[in-house]
Amino acid sequence: MTRISTSTFRVRYAETDQMGVAYHPHYLVWCEIGRTDFIRDLGISYAELERRGHLLAVAEASVRYAASARYDDVIRVDTRLVAVKSRTLTFAYEIHRDEPDPAALATATTTLISLDRDGAPRRLPDTVLDLFRAAEHPDTGADMIRG
Amino acid sequence: MTRISTSTFRVRYAETDQMGVAYHPHYLVWCEIGRTDFIRDLGISYAELERRGHLLAVAEASVRYAASARYDDVIRVDTRLVAVKSRTLTFAYEIHRDEPDPAALATATTTLISLDRDGAPRRLPDTVLDLFRAAEHPDTGADMIRG
Amino acid sequence: MTRISTSTFRVRYAETDQMGVAYHPHYLVWCEIGRTDFIRDLGISYAELERRGHLLAVAEASVRYAASARYDDVIRVDTRLVAVKSRTLTFAYEIHRDEPDPAALATATTTLISLDRDGAPRRLPDTVLDLFRAAEHPDTGADMIRG
Amino acid sequence: MTRISTSTFRVRYAETDQMGVAYHPHYLVWCEIGRTDFIRDLGISYAELERRGHLLAVAEASVRYAASARYDDVIRVDTRLVAVKSRTLTFAYEIHRDEPDPAALATATTTLISLDRDGAPRRLPDTVLDLFRAAEHPDTGADMIRG
Repeated sequence: MTRISTSTFRVRYAETDQMGVAYHPHYLVWCEIGRTDFIRDLGISYAELERRGHLLAVAEASVRYAASARYDDVIRVDTRLVAVKSRTLTFAYEIHRDEPDPAALATATTTLISLDRDGAPRRLPDTVLDLFRAAEHPDTGADMIRG
Repeated sequence: MTRISTSTFRVRYAETDQMGVAYHPHYLVWCEIGRTDFIRDLGISYAELERRGHLLAVAEASVRYAASARYDDVIRVDTRLVAVKSRTLTFAYEIHRDEPDPAALATATTTLISLDRDGAPRRLPDTVLDLFRAAEHPDTGADMIRG
Repeated sequence: MTRISTSTFRVRYAETDQMGVAYHPHYLVWCEIGRTDFIRDLGISYAELERRGHLLAVAEASVRYAASARYDDVIRVDTRLVAVKSRTLTFAYEIHRDEPDPAALATATTTLISLDRDGAPRRLPDTVLDLFRAAEHPDTGADMIRG
Repeated sequence: MTRISTSTFRVRYAETDQMGVAYHPHYLVWCEIGRTDFIRDLGISYAELERRGHLLAVAEASVRYAASARYDDVIRVDTRLVAVKSRTLTFAYEIHRDEPDPAALATATTTLISLDRDGAPRRLPDTVLDLFRAAEHPDTGADMIRG
């Protein structure tokens, strides 16, 4: 069972701003890439989960920015699932630059709530919850930052 | 009946890139703002049209860029409807900077196709087509550029 | 002196996602619009501040999402400056839907650090700091949520 | 010498809109990914070229959309350089879905103009022009669409 999922990609020109660095809200997009890959690594497709009427909506998001990413840098997002409840999931992310010069760029956490198509809270299917629970990692996001 | 709709807004920081100017694909987002306002000026809400199962999907888009837009510039999009058919609409756009220094920035055209929720071509309702036809402007996008 | 700045705009089609609502990272873009307007209301242009070599980079951002925004909704962002230090500013935001049906959508806070063009921390000019301090609002973001 | 560069990536959730498909301006972002990879395959880094004061700004862009891309689809962009002049480059792109079900999604062309940091037209360095010319592909974008 994967406990940490790793996603890598290059910073797009579209993601830069006039400061010459990746614009800060894009880090939440990168977290979503990490989350999609984490779920895929569990053998679930989030796209398929959503087609079956289980939507994971972001209820809380926070990011701490330590260093900047530049165009064409190779970024790595390490994603963990730090809390699983019947209706909410909390993911923690470490965002690194791998190339050209390795650096820790940011940490982030997002809490997602499971909804049905009408936006009402809905318990995740047990088979899915079991997979998430088996992949739950006891460390908190705060621990990740310090570690 | 409005023949030219005008939309104004400021360039967002989010829209800049590391060249220090508005990133070029955002001009198509600005065209969509112009199109939404044009349709609203006809007394139709595109949001409502879509809720009723009439989707307008972009089939072709082209943009000619003449000058750059910078963060916080006041942009004006002038939108015309240059061709109406039972299943397609062609809009033409002139994008200007109004402040701080007026300049013509770009011209663009987009052709939209009317689809149902399943993505199949679907004739627009006659009441809507009539409104579009009454607002149709004979000039082509090419004429707009030269004019 | 303005203590709360108000920004209003409509949700763009570009901002929606396949859940049919505004995609969550865009709320940070909306906060930046609120921040730009807040600074403008003080008589300062952030664009001009940046041209003079004072960059405000986001060091921390957090958002709590309470309800969804849909395409073409009229959004209002109320922005306050809740903490001013010589090198950091903390803004708090309340994001509301004004039309068609009023609702509180989200609260957010961002902490910005003042940098020079090379990314090194740099004290803001005293004249600018004085304006920010005069506009500082003692409430925390947490109070804003409850209030 | 590479004549066609291939870029592959998955559609991000961030790229979807409320029609449930990738929002049309993002195709120009995908073209830029293709262009970046094409230039990299020639042994040049566009990031480095820009650091040396050679900016390639988009002067014209056009896209024809044939089919939609959905979240998590694997997209492939095939990029060719169809015209090289001393100050302009024209690229043509074919955008395909590779997974889950292969399909041709769109064709596009963009013409870029070489500028200096102040936005004035500037001839590309001969060493770079030589590499571009050697990679020039005689077919036009129009031929690509039909072929």
